[in-house]
Amino acid sequence: MSMWQLYQFPLCPFSRKVRLLLGEKGVGYELVRESPWERRDEFIDLNPAGRTPVMVDEERGQLLIDSNAIAEYFEETVEGKAMINGTAAQRAEIRRLVAWFDQDFYYEVTGPLLFERMQKRIVHRQPPDGGALREAMKAANNHLDYIDYLIDHRTWLAGATMSLADLAAAAHISVADYLGGIDWTGHDQTKGWYSGLKSRPSFRPLLAERMEIVSPPKYYEDVDF
Amino acid sequence: MSMWQLYQFPLCPFSRKVRLLLGEKGVGYELVRESPWERRDEFIDLNPAGRTPVMVDEERGQLLIDSNAIAEYFEETVEGKAMINGTAAQRAEIRRLVAWFDQDFYYEVTGPLLFERMQKRIVHRQPPDGGALREAMKAANNHLDYIDYLIDHRTWLAGATMSLADLAAAAHISVADYLGGIDWTGHDQTKGWYSGLKSRPSFRPLLAERMEIVSPPKYYEDVDF
Repeated sequence: MSMWQLYQFPLCPFSRKVRLLLGEKGVGYELVRESPWERRDEFIDLNPAGRTPVMVDEERGQLLIDSNAIAEYFEETVEGKAMINGTAAQRAEIRRLVAWFDQDFYYEVTGPLLFERMQKRIVHRQPPDGGALREAMKAANNHLDYIDYLIDHRTWLAGATMSLADLAAAAHISVADYLGGIDWTGHDQTKGWYSGLKSRPSFRPLLAERMEIVSPPKYYEDVDF
Repeated sequence: MSMWQLYQFPLCPFSRKVRLLLGEKGVGYELVRESPWERRDEFIDLNPAGRTPVMVDEERGQLLIDSNAIAEYFEETVEGKAMINGTAAQRAEIRRLVAWFDQDFYYEVTGPLLFERMQKRIVHRQPPDGGALREAMKAANNHLDYIDYLIDHRTWLAGATMSLADLAAAAHISVADYLGGIDWTGHDQTKGWYSGLKSRPSFRPLLAERMEIVSPPKYYEDVDF
């Protein structure tokens, strides 16, 4: 039987988004550990952009690159729960929010936290920069304010049903939370929404994984936090 | 009759991609000039991410944000020439290349050139940094090598037919070319492909526009260059 392989590392938010989607859709895959910062030749041959996630089905000669191209591919090819769903206008709102988390949240929060708390430690063997951490945490707080606002007006981030927007947001938040970048105080709406996502079977395996050397806060895995 | 408004500025590569798509699909729109670096309150209210392009159809109460959400929306709602076309695998390859140009080409080439040659001049009234310009031009050359390679193997960037990948690439290249960041020497394949795109009715109006204060090289608008 042919099987998808997913190249990723445990704290890659884009791989987490794809894994949550595959989990919700019931698509099987096996994990291949890749550390993109090592720029391994064989990986660059696979994906010249050098980024995770990449998905390969060797038997069928299929290669998928870029987390959103991957998400759209499985949305188009796998029957069952739709994650980019609704009218064209609703789908546009889902994709807007996915881009918001993959771009704004990543560049202001997840990216700096990964650099300061993971890459500096593993690659450069340096301590994190306190000012950069404070900036990222401040930005995270603004983003959580925005999610609070969305949850005040909608059941899920993009509307009445769970969508890829929720998965993208949860993927980034979970990485930021692992790296100690989220202060949950005063964000009850976001907390309730995130607690619901944490309890899903698609999310449990991700929360159980650990990145070597870097440890999460004690409450990280708990549904009640 | 209801009409789309497109918030953009002449050198925004993401707005150019959308305009090329709308042109190829025959969708009418009117331009609204927006300078996102001014962070105008009314524009932030429209799009909290503060980026162009944004599309508004006031009569129908429609708001579209993010260039790819916009592209997918018109792909889904407008009959006629498909620009994210083919099998699911081919569509994944189109989306991979769109992400390649919107992320890699933008962060290495278009973004730095816009900052050094446009924003510094208009906002900061400073001269560009020579080292940053050289880095961007070197990166542009590597990207053109990759496009040469693709064109050696395919008729269009993502396969046998023109797609959003070609429009995304041409959008970024046209901005880089306007800003003097492209050295065409030794890139005959890319040059031939780009010349074909330049002659399309969807591209002509963009090439005729000018950004105040910043002028393009003499050959910029020519189909033979």
